[in-house]
Order: sequence, then C-alpha cells, then structure tokens
Amino acid sequence: MAECNFVEIAKNAKLASKKLATLSTDIKNKALLAIAEALDLNQSLIFEANKKDLELAKDTLSASVFNRLKLDANKMRDMIQGVIDIYNLEDPIGKFLMQRSLDTGLILSKVSCPIGVLGIIFEARPDVISQITALAIKSSNAIILKGGKEAVNTNKAIFKIINDALASIKIFPPHSITQVFSREDVQEMLKCDAYIDLIIPRGGNDLVKYIKENTNIPVLGHADGVCHIFVDEFADLEKAKRIIIDAKTQYPSACNSVETLLIHERFMYKEELQKVLLSSGIELIYNVENWHVEYSDTKLSVKFVSSLEEAVEHINNYSSGHTESIITDSRENAAVFLKTVDSAGVYHNASTRFADGFRYGFGAEVGISTNKIHARGPVGLQGLTIYKYTLQGNGDIVNDYIEGVKHFNHKDLI
Amino acid sequence: MAECNFVEIAKNAKLASKKLATLSTDIKNKALLAIAEALDLNQSLIFEANKKDLELAKDTLSASVFNRLKLDANKMRDMIQGVIDIYNLEDPIGKFLMQRSLDTGLILSKVSCPIGVLGIIFEARPDVISQITALAIKSSNAIILKGGKEAVNTNKAIFKIINDALASIKIFPPHSITQVFSREDVQEMLKCDAYIDLIIPRGGNDLVKYIKENTNIPVLGHADGVCHIFVDEFADLEKAKRIIIDAKTQYPSACNSVETLLIHERFMYKEELQKVLLSSGIELIYNVENWHVEYSDTKLSVKFVSSLEEAVEHINNYSSGHTESIITDSRENAAVFLKTVDSAGVYHNASTRFADGFRYGFGAEVGISTNKIHARGPVGLQGLTIYKYTLQGNGDIVNDYIEGVKHFNHKDLI
Repeated sequence: MAECNFVEIAKNAKLASKKLATLSTDIKNKALLAIAEALDLNQSLIFEANKKDLELAKDTLSASVFNRLKLDANKMRDMIQGVIDIYNLEDPIGKFLMQRSLDTGLILSKVSCPIGVLGIIFEARPDVISQITALAIKSSNAIILKGGKEAVNTNKAIFKIINDALASIKIFPPHSITQVFSREDVQEMLKCDAYIDLIIPRGGNDLVKYIKENTNIPVLGHADGVCHIFVDEFADLEKAKRIIIDAKTQYPSACNSVETLLIHERFMYKEELQKVLLSSGIELIYNVENWHVEYSDTKLSVKFVSSLEEAVEHINNYSSGHTESIITDSRENAAVFLKTVDSAGVYHNASTRFADGFRYGFGAEVGISTNKIHARGPVGLQGLTIYKYTLQGNGDIVNDYIEGVKHFNHKDLI
Repeated sequence: MAECNFVEIAKNAKLASKKLATLSTDIKNKALLAIAEALDLNQSLIFEANKKDLELAKDTLSASVFNRLKLDANKMRDMIQGVIDIYNLEDPIGKFLMQRSLDTGLILSKVSCPIGVLGIIFEARPDVISQITALAIKSSNAIILKGGKEAVNTNKAIFKIINDALASIKIFPPHSITQVFSREDVQEMLKCDAYIDLIIPRGGNDLVKYIKENTNIPVLGHADGVCHIFVDEFADLEKAKRIIIDAKTQYPSACNSVETLLIHERFMYKEELQKVLLSSGIELIYNVENWHVEYSDTKLSVKFVSSLEEAVEHINNYSSGHTESIITDSRENAAVFLKTVDSAGVYHNASTRFADGFRYGFGAEVGISTNKIHARGPVGLQGLTIYKYTLQGNGDIVNDYIEGVKHFNHKDLI
C-alpha cells in the first residue's frame, strides 16, 4: 500500500466516500461490530506488533512518548469498548435539520451528510486508529490515516484487522479506510485539496502548526492549550483550591490543564491560596516573560489583576481559545465572564479538565478544536458532518417569481 | 484610513469584535435602523459619488461590469430595504443550541456566538456594502471590507454614511466596520491570521481562486458554479423544457445557472427537447472538451448517458458542488439522485436558479458556499456564527470522576 501513488489512494478514497454516503445505519453498525469483534479476537497479534515497536523505541523515545505508544490490557479494553460506544451512538447522517415550504409544492430540506474524505495525521498513540476509524464509519466519511513512525508495526496490525473485518461485509466500499506511512505521503496529503476535504492532526503543537502553515485544505485542530483560571474577588477559597489543583496536577500534560492563574488583587485569601498550591507541588511562576507558554508540567504562571475586565482582556489576548474558568460566587461576574471570554469552553466554578468529548457526553471525540468556524471545542460525530439542501419541486422555475406570477410563502415545516 | 497600517486596523477590528459580541439585540437593531435612515436621507450623495465612478469607468469597463457598478433608484431602494429586512430577522447570537446536565449541578450549554473578524473582498457592486454590513452587525461580527477600485467613490460615500450613522449610537464600538482600498491591504489581509477569522470573497472565479491559494485563513466562497441538470428517462417533457430554459436563460451569468445538460439515452422526447432549447436561443455544445467550463452565457454542454448512475458519477466528477437538478417523474430515481449527488443543492423537478439565500427564506445572504465544512449553499446569518460551550459548576473537579467518587449522568435539558 505504501508504494502506491498517493493521488491514486486519495482518488480511491473519494470514490469510496460517495458510496459510504449512501450506506444504511444498519450496514455501518454491522461494520463497527465486526471491527470490535476482530480486535477482541486478535489482541495477541496487536500486542506482538506493539512489543516490536516498543523494543525498537526503548532507547530513543522519552518515557512519556513510550507510555503513549505502549498498549496494555486496559487500553485494549478501552479500544474495543470505544468502537462499541460509537456503535451505540445515533447515526448523524440523513437528519433533517430544517424543512421549509418555499411555496405550495416546493419543499426545501436541509439534510445532514458526510464531509467526504478526512486526512488524519497522528503521533504515537496507536489506540487512536480504531476510535477515529469508528467515528469515520459512523459518520460515513472515508479516511486516510498517517500514524507516527514509532508505532508503525502496531498501526499496521490494527489496520489489517480493521480492513479484514470490513472486507467481510460485502457491501462495505473498499478504500474507505486507508493508511499511509511516509513523510512524503504527508506532503502529498497537504497538497491534495482535489480529493481531501478536511485534515485533522492529533499531536503536539509543532505538528499542528506545521500542517496549518502548509496546506490550503481546512484543518480541524488546536495548536495550543493555554487555559486560564481567574480567581475573582468573590471566589470561594475551597472551590479555588480544589479546582486549580485538579486543573494543574490531575494530568499536567493534557491540553485542557491550566497554564495561567489570574488572581483578583482584592481576593482576601490570595496568600493562603498560593501557599496551598505550593504545598500541592505546583511551581508558581511570577516573572512570566511569555504569557503564551504551555508548560505541560506542574508549573503555573501567576498574574494579579485589578478587575474582572482586566482578567477577561488578558485571556482574550493570550489564550489559545481552548478553555477558561472563573471561580466566583458572584453570579453577575460569572455571567460577564461567560459572555465576554471568547474561547471554545468558558466555565464557572469548574475545572478546565472537563473539556473533553467523553465528559461532554459526545461518546467519543476526534479532538478538540480551537477553530472559529465549523466546529469548536470537543468534536464528536456531529463535527464530521455537513449538510446539503434538497429541493423538491414539480416543474418550478424562478422566472415565475421574478415576473410576479408566483410568490414565495416561506413556511417552516419542522 | 487607507494610510493606516493594516495590522493596526485588524487589531482594532479584533478589539471591536469582542465588544460587538456583548451587544444586545436592541442596540444592534437601533444601529441597523440608523443605517437604513441615513442611506435614505443621503441618497443624493451616493448617486453623486456613483456618477464620478461611472464617468471614470465608462471607457474601460465592460457593459456588464458597468451595469453592476451603476446604482439606480431601484437598487437604492433594494439596498435600504435589505438593511430593514435584516433588522427584522431574529438575532442569531446567544441561542442555546444544546443544554445538558453532565451530573447534578454541572450544566453544559452550547451557545451561539459570533465568529469574530470577517475580511470581505468584493468586486464592483457597491450595493453589497450595506447588505454585508447589516449581516455583520446583526451577527455581532466586525468586518474589514475591500471593494473594487472602480467603485471607490461610491464605496467611500456609502461607508461614510454607515459609519456616521453608527457613531450616533454611543455604545456601538468604533472600528467595527472598516474599509481598506489598496491591493497591498488585500495582501496584508491574507496574511493576517492573528486577527482575521474568516475571509469571504464575492466576485469572479479568478478572485476566489487567488484568495484560496494565498491564505491560511479559512475562506467561505465558491470558485465556480458548474451546475447540472439531468433529464432522466422518466422525465416529463414539459417540465424539462420549462426548467432548462429557466435555468439557462433567465440570468445566464449567475452562478446558479445550468452549464451541463445530461440526457438519458432512453428519454423518448430527447429530439424534441433539443429542438425547443435551440429555438429558445440556447446554443447546445456536443463536442465538449472541458466539462468543468462555466459559460456565463446561453451555451450549454450536452452529454447523453445510459443510466442514472452514469449521470450521478459525471456530476460528482465534474460539478463544482454548487447545485444540480434531476427531472423525472420517478420518485425512486429522484430519491437516489438526492441521496448520491454530493453538492450544496440537489433538486428534483426544479430550476437550479432557486439556489439563493432570499429564495430559501434566509432574508439575505453573504454568498453561496461550495465548501465542505462550516456552511454550504446560500449562507445567511447563521453561517456567520459559531458556538462556545459554557459549563456551570459548583467547585466540580475531574479527579472525582476519574477516581469513581462521582459519575457522569448525561441528561439533555433542551
């Protein structure tokens, strides 16, 4: 497969996508069940391949990348359950989002449909393949996956199991799920706007930035997760402690962990709060040179502000637009914060770590978007759809309306 | 204004956009009424400026561009009425698109909000300014407008009237609506992804293509309008005649006029149909070399196909994804066509010319999108919005859910 010309692969994916768009929910669900079963039956093949990758990587990769690469029984169980969860989700395709009579017998409908071909570029974590594949199948999109080279054996094993399972379902279009392996393939993918409709990178900042700067294809992703917590003058000390410790230490390298703490100068317990944070192992940074920094560690930039407005302004200037939280017992200040902060997630008295597709109840996510168009925040099945307008007429022509023979009479039907 | 540094302009627009996001419907509507009144009161100033442009352009512009540039009493009335129509539309901002309880006292809401700063690049037609401005105000977006140089006097006059009207409303943020004039400004705009969230080009194919190829900012627009009509074997001859003549001759240079006619070989009246089309002044082209061509004239590419599937395949290969129509009395074939054709508009027994925001009942449109993400087809107010997720908690932390102290209990509230 890797030797095949990329444009050929993309063309085949496009053709497959047109067929995928017409599959019934039943067939898509059968495919998902077949994948879940095949993964379950072939666990040992996957673990073997993963062992090979780990052996090759053990001297070169950092501990954290090594851990993301490593599959264990828990991750395997989550992988399989993840596919079943998506099987259980409602089909997002073919939904009537609007239906309107333009005139007697002239019915306009807005119907959800797949986007087409998605290019997915991800690093390490091989458990991503089955999740992304399942989301693509349920939303009737074709995908071209490019995984990290350190996971190549694991990725190939999972990919083969998935495609063998799909091949067992006669009606399922071949070339719906393709995998590519080389850097050259990524270069080709970024240029391939004739066949690829959306690129979704999952990985570090550098990867996402590189992709955004080198393609004209729309990119769905977030380059940074510079999240803020603002401790208002009317904050409750206990809530502040709990939330900040959770948001900073529960999983410091996650994109939804907090990087900057803004404290109102008039918050009475500011000294006590800082003491507690320090004693929880958080390093507080006061002489911050770069407010855009994402520590991915238990470090936290701290700034004192003299007003809610100053806090909001700081956030709107320096945030990556991911998730921000205000801690306050003032309803009024919370309302101002929720309204004026321009980020994908804006919270009141809750940890920024809630920004996640599973926690939001989306069943799964392809990632978290800080884009200002299409999809923002955790992106689940719905973010992988678009719509088309269908119009049912009976010989209707525009000239009748231009000449005043007929008149529009817009009436919403649903 | 034109001498001002573009980045400064964009920065100011971004600041204004944050304030616009918090304006009440009432203030936005006051602004729209003030603009409509000011346009009405200052018609003579606009006509004067337009006369200047026409005088300068009369020897260099084609008749069609000259006509688009020329304002008359009808266009002026439509301009003013267009602003009032948008005043009458529902405010698209602050709508609760979803509300879900994640657990007791932990409420997630998906709330519509503006995109931010829109860069609008348009050619000739000065009547576009007031419409785009009104849509931007109603959707709480800041805009930077760049009009065609042949309309510079008219654009400046309209722009001044609009901004004077906005200045009369104390609370309305300055720099919400800015205009720039030079080619260099366009170059700067395309690079300005730090402050501009979306670019909307309105103009010919060359303009749109150039913009798409030269920016990393998302672009909302359509490069081509290569629309198809398929006359199925079960077509009604009278409907076929009416619809094709309307779709080709009613306004041949419109993007939603038909360019390619596919005729089923087994359609009994195919000879008669062609005769009627010829006698209606349509030139039928049988030796087509480029199926991607948009004639913008009363020419029509013709192809005979042996099946519905072949017609769909041709359309999915060569269409620009704008609008396509099937003419048939077979419900079954119509259903297959509507499901399998991948375009923004897919019609049954109706003219492609219906693809238009006003005809769809959107009140107004910023343009027609052939994008596969965010907004597709005619784009009205809703296409100028995105959403954010707000989360209302009471000291909630993720660690409680990781450790199993608490459990998510997703329940949709609306």
